[in-house]
Amino acid sequence: MRQMKKCCQKGMKVAYKIWLDHNGKAFGEGPYKLLKLVEKTGSLHKAAQNMHMSYRKAWLMIHSIEKNLGFPLLTTKVGGIAGGGSIITIQGKHLMDNYEKFRKEAEKSLKKIFTKYFG
Amino acid sequence: MRQMKKCCQKGMKVAYKIWLDHNGKAFGEGPYKLLKLVEKTGSLHKAAQNMHMSYRKAWLMIHSIEKNLGFPLLTTKVGGIAGGGSIITIQGKHLMDNYEKFRKEAEKSLKKIFTKYFG
Repeated sequence: MRQMKKCCQKGMKVAYKIWLDHNGKAFGEGPYKLLKLVEKTGSLHKAAQNMHMSYRKAWLMIHSIEKNLGFPLLTTKVGGIAGGGSIITIQGKHLMDNYEKFRKEAEKSLKKIFTKYFG
Repeated sequence: MRQMKKCCQKGMKVAYKIWLDHNGKAFGEGPYKLLKLVEKTGSLHKAAQNMHMSYRKAWLMIHSIEKNLGFPLLTTKVGGIAGGGSIITIQGKHLMDNYEKFRKEAEKSLKKIFTKYFG
């Protein structure tokens, strides 16, 4: 008979992926990071570059989410001294804020439940 | 200016994958289902068949988890009227029970947090 050991190993932890679903993947970590970078850089071009993603892929990602969710995430800023760029819409900002709060609370809760059963 | 809409679509829901990690994926939905079928059928062969998985793949999955977690999940039942088969160890059963409770509580909590921000 093999030796009994307590379940489970020290160093074990909970891992997870969470996303919003609306007839398929609707919004998650990738788009969230992309939008955060648009917010920071004022440009979808720069945000895409930062994520080592082609502009086309980034644009398609944003476009597909907008189509699925039914509202715009970005508007185009035209001209001015600094030239054009992208701005997050109010609905986009609202989505980002809620997603961020949701994600943080979910992480906290999952860790707590994990500790209850495996800590 | 595009029309404003409330964030987000009705019918949107939270989707997720959760697993236990110990220097990589340690235990999750697939192994849990396999062990539940071993429990039901009394045989890793039958459990693997039920999941349309080769016996070899099922055995490797179990073996790799046992090695990672440091305790046996299955023991071999030899002979008897019904022939041999597999039995879940006490530690295996303990892991399954805790995983099941953890998963159910995590689901409940994630849905609640989702409703708070997107419901």
